[in-house]
Amino acid sequence: MCTAASFRKGGLYFGRTLDNHMSYGEEAVIAPRAFDFGFKGRYAIVGMALVQGGYPLFYDAMNEAGLCMAGLNFVGNAQYFKSVGARDEVAQYEFIPFILSRCQSVEEAVEVIRKIRLTDRQFCENLPCAQLHWMISDAERDIVVECTKSGMQIFENAFGVLTNNPPFGEQLLNVSDYMHLSASQPENNFFKGVDMQRYSLGMGAIGLPGDLSSRSRFVRAAFVRNNCICGDGNTDGVNALFNILGSVRQVRGCNVIKDGCETTLYTSCCDASAGIYYYTLYENHAITGVGMRSRDLNSSELYRFPLEREERITLV
Amino acid sequence: MCTAASFRKGGLYFGRTLDNHMSYGEEAVIAPRAFDFGFKGRYAIVGMALVQGGYPLFYDAMNEAGLCMAGLNFVGNAQYFKSVGARDEVAQYEFIPFILSRCQSVEEAVEVIRKIRLTDRQFCENLPCAQLHWMISDAERDIVVECTKSGMQIFENAFGVLTNNPPFGEQLLNVSDYMHLSASQPENNFFKGVDMQRYSLGMGAIGLPGDLSSRSRFVRAAFVRNNCICGDGNTDGVNALFNILGSVRQVRGCNVIKDGCETTLYTSCCDASAGIYYYTLYENHAITGVGMRSRDLNSSELYRFPLEREERITLV
Amino acid sequence: MCTAASFRKGGLYFGRTLDNHMSYGEEAVIAPRAFDFGFKGRYAIVGMALVQGGYPLFYDAMNEAGLCMAGLNFVGNAQYFKSVGARDEVAQYEFIPFILSRCQSVEEAVEVIRKIRLTDRQFCENLPCAQLHWMISDAERDIVVECTKSGMQIFENAFGVLTNNPPFGEQLLNVSDYMHLSASQPENNFFKGVDMQRYSLGMGAIGLPGDLSSRSRFVRAAFVRNNCICGDGNTDGVNALFNILGSVRQVRGCNVIKDGCETTLYTSCCDASAGIYYYTLYENHAITGVGMRSRDLNSSELYRFPLEREERITLV
Amino acid sequence: MCTAASFRKGGLYFGRTLDNHMSYGEEAVIAPRAFDFGFKGRYAIVGMALVQGGYPLFYDAMNEAGLCMAGLNFVGNAQYFKSVGARDEVAQYEFIPFILSRCQSVEEAVEVIRKIRLTDRQFCENLPCAQLHWMISDAERDIVVECTKSGMQIFENAFGVLTNNPPFGEQLLNVSDYMHLSASQPENNFFKGVDMQRYSLGMGAIGLPGDLSSRSRFVRAAFVRNNCICGDGNTDGVNALFNILGSVRQVRGCNVIKDGCETTLYTSCCDASAGIYYYTLYENHAITGVGMRSRDLNSSELYRFPLEREERITLV
Repeated sequence: MCTAASFRKGGLYFGRTLDNHMSYGEEAVIAPRAFDFGFKGRYAIVGMALVQGGYPLFYDAMNEAGLCMAGLNFVGNAQYFKSVGARDEVAQYEFIPFILSRCQSVEEAVEVIRKIRLTDRQFCENLPCAQLHWMISDAERDIVVECTKSGMQIFENAFGVLTNNPPFGEQLLNVSDYMHLSASQPENNFFKGVDMQRYSLGMGAIGLPGDLSSRSRFVRAAFVRNNCICGDGNTDGVNALFNILGSVRQVRGCNVIKDGCETTLYTSCCDASAGIYYYTLYENHAITGVGMRSRDLNSSELYRFPLEREERITLV
Repeated sequence: MCTAASFRKGGLYFGRTLDNHMSYGEEAVIAPRAFDFGFKGRYAIVGMALVQGGYPLFYDAMNEAGLCMAGLNFVGNAQYFKSVGARDEVAQYEFIPFILSRCQSVEEAVEVIRKIRLTDRQFCENLPCAQLHWMISDAERDIVVECTKSGMQIFENAFGVLTNNPPFGEQLLNVSDYMHLSASQPENNFFKGVDMQRYSLGMGAIGLPGDLSSRSRFVRAAFVRNNCICGDGNTDGVNALFNILGSVRQVRGCNVIKDGCETTLYTSCCDASAGIYYYTLYENHAITGVGMRSRDLNSSELYRFPLEREERITLV
Repeated sequence: MCTAASFRKGGLYFGRTLDNHMSYGEEAVIAPRAFDFGFKGRYAIVGMALVQGGYPLFYDAMNEAGLCMAGLNFVGNAQYFKSVGARDEVAQYEFIPFILSRCQSVEEAVEVIRKIRLTDRQFCENLPCAQLHWMISDAERDIVVECTKSGMQIFENAFGVLTNNPPFGEQLLNVSDYMHLSASQPENNFFKGVDMQRYSLGMGAIGLPGDLSSRSRFVRAAFVRNNCICGDGNTDGVNALFNILGSVRQVRGCNVIKDGCETTLYTSCCDASAGIYYYTLYENHAITGVGMRSRDLNSSELYRFPLEREERITLV
Repeated sequence: MCTAASFRKGGLYFGRTLDNHMSYGEEAVIAPRAFDFGFKGRYAIVGMALVQGGYPLFYDAMNEAGLCMAGLNFVGNAQYFKSVGARDEVAQYEFIPFILSRCQSVEEAVEVIRKIRLTDRQFCENLPCAQLHWMISDAERDIVVECTKSGMQIFENAFGVLTNNPPFGEQLLNVSDYMHLSASQPENNFFKGVDMQRYSLGMGAIGLPGDLSSRSRFVRAAFVRNNCICGDGNTDGVNALFNILGSVRQVRGCNVIKDGCETTLYTSCCDASAGIYYYTLYENHAITGVGMRSRDLNSSELYRFPLEREERITLV
């Protein structure tokens, strides 16, 4: 499963964890303006993608205009339209480049989304359609897009985070149970006048869930994201977003499934102002950045950056 | 507040978070064999210390033999003996170098500890005696040492973690409330025969606390530490320990106190086999290592390594 | 708010708590076969009702055939059809007598419900339409009926309980988070091989919520109901149901609202085999029973039984 | 296990649940002033006792002066002095009558307790010494008495409740984790400015534990007791205490042990002003009262009142 979050300090910082039991070979990729997605776009895109036959299947990405988008697992609830070859159809696997290659803002994205039908057309026979929902963010606004048996829905996302099941509306209800949690020490509402011990700092958030289920990660990521503060330095926003997403990082062995262990394979952070896509890996805590602006973005060829899988330690 | 944890894979990996609202200027330090602590030692020590007037006040450290030790806040419960100038007295601030400079193992440490009295003699007038308890680990064993109004006590620590209040015995009782938590999906004990939805991975640990109080961090660190697995590569153990301690990292803004925000200022990892002390900082996710073996350990002068406080990003 | 539960031992025992800040004057009522509800019925009904202008507005009731039905608050989610005077319309306030006066079983009730449209026609101008959903039970089966913006839905209810918000589907998801809870002592999944203390009996259900919110009452009532056992004596099933519902009883002062305190005003238990409607009041722990079979059920006049509001204590 | 609680409204109401898998044959008993306990007393006592060879082994009781006392399981922590036949010894089984037969107030009881040594002398060979701790209350004050390996300790009990393990000091620490819980709707501390849904009443106490372990019952009983309100009627205080203790009632089947099911066999309520001992049974929700004042209290013979084990239902 996965977690996405936005953070705003000066500009937008947007990222996600990708949690899985194994990597399928994703890499950092820049798709320049003239890259042929099967449709024409205007904006270059940088993000993490599995490149299949030269085509980048983006997991999460950002465009030149600073619009960011991530797809997260939504298994059992995602339900796309059947493809009938109509003109308004967009296949699920095209959704991220379709939006990012033509929209500058969430507002533009909403307008586009209202006109399309997301279909279950497969990228190829061997690749079943991923069951996903999406978070889309710009400098001002976060939305969530879900395609379920009730059709396609767009939600404003005041919490600025997204995980997986249940549907977003139910996540919003569930997080309400935690509204009393605070980053400050708690009031004594239990028994006024009786001395109750504040034996530790941080007691105001007692009740915050610490497990790795998608409901719990939603609440924890929202709490940390909403309380997180940082300075004004160049990399402070990047640092903050990695710290926020670090709070829902899946440590290998703590989420055992039949094929192995669900683990946070990578964590990303798009710096929308600088046009840089940063990432860390489970095996490498150091941050690597891929900048768009230093490349020729009018090209039609992908730029591909294999991930650095070794812990990059500096010995002094 | 703080969290310490051990992890064993091949050898011992031992580390801690240091959580505070501001740094007092700690740095990585090697105290070689001939360094004068006010007493004579046999073993060189590497760790994180505040150097005051040339004297390293260690927060956590490891010696040449691979014995590791960390002091963690224990405010309100720590109670030392009054210093009367007796021969068996060791001041609280000397405790880490006293043990690490003369013991090769937990067994030797226990023997030494049973013969001494830990006193509240201050390092200097302006530095009040820190209220601490300690975790000590070697390749086989973890113990906790507490000095309270009941005297000095040594506990075996099967959980391999330590945080702060309440006393260790009460932490052991409290963690019992979580014994059902599992890294695997839960059984349906609630209502056998009725279909209950496993709508997310990771539901076996629902109930694990996610807040930053010391009881909750104890449970969470213990759970993650006990379930964490890693490969056999050179840096896999280091990676694992940083991932374990990452699960209790305090993000700035999530634990507000009157002087600012309790934050995980640094996280350390002693690689006991290699004699290397690693650390990351809140502002710098990349790992820095300080090796003992490449230095002349017969010296009497401290080796001091100021911390690298900038996010060390590699742009590709 | 309120809680309903069924229990089967020999026959069906079905009841509910009614939680409110004040009583509107409800009383136990028998509506015999010939009572004119504005429509014709076949079966006599006994239950708790507010009698308005000679018309019993039932909160919960049972008919001669042992079919039981209770309406519970569903504020913010209930949405009825607009009345247009069509033949298939049943006003919300008629729903309980409409079903109970003509159905012998849940199966029959389902058939009837599929043919009607539940409307918001008011009983009178001063009585706004209550926002409710319903639980209906017979000797074999429990269902829930909800009328929301998605239309009318019928759910099988394997848990045998109902409270209030959120909609039933979301309650089913939420209760999944508690599937590990057990009436027996917990296994140690946390850290196999390490001694964890079973310092108390009853630790297998640690995590069960104890508050009075509708999600928590659903989980708690389901847990207690599913684990509850009783003997074969005459009143053992009655005793069991009162004990189950006692676990979600709202004590005055523990749920403060602007108008006073939400309190469990009464608790009921229909003994379907005996045709007796039992109740206790907040102010009176002793059980009172109203039997149908000792009355002339062919009458057209209501039998009304004012509630006994004094604690009925026996002094020995 | 068991729960005790006090409640003050006008006078003192004091009671307890007795939780066990089977009854040993306890009954309501009045021990008048001249009854020979093996020592001389001044005050008559009424309470629940197992009468063995004519001697009442009290579980909980009250004396003429309104002083109340209950013994609750404290297995694994209770540790009495070895009996050596000294004059200041009181056997554990004599403790309740020893205090109640000679003290009018908690203050007097404290004075007496400080002068005695509680020993493990058995009542008879077949009856091993019960491992207990005690709550003692008068119209103004509640205390807890514990005899552990640290000796005998007396605690002020501002919470007015007692359950079982862990020791009282640890219960006080543990309850601190719940200080934010409120009988009113919660504030939104989580994310100010964002609309969070109050979808149910009673959300201010979300986090209150609902299981039957002794730590959870302590917190729940304390919360309910501290928030409970009642009117000024004659039986309102009695009603309130039964409602408070009802919140920790153990329903048969929800706490399975190897010998059966831990169940709340009886619940008691001493009305200190009226000198009446009330009780309900698991099998009988109706309240039975045993008054002292209508008997000749100068007698030396026990008055014994077998429990009424049938549900006392009134059919109307």
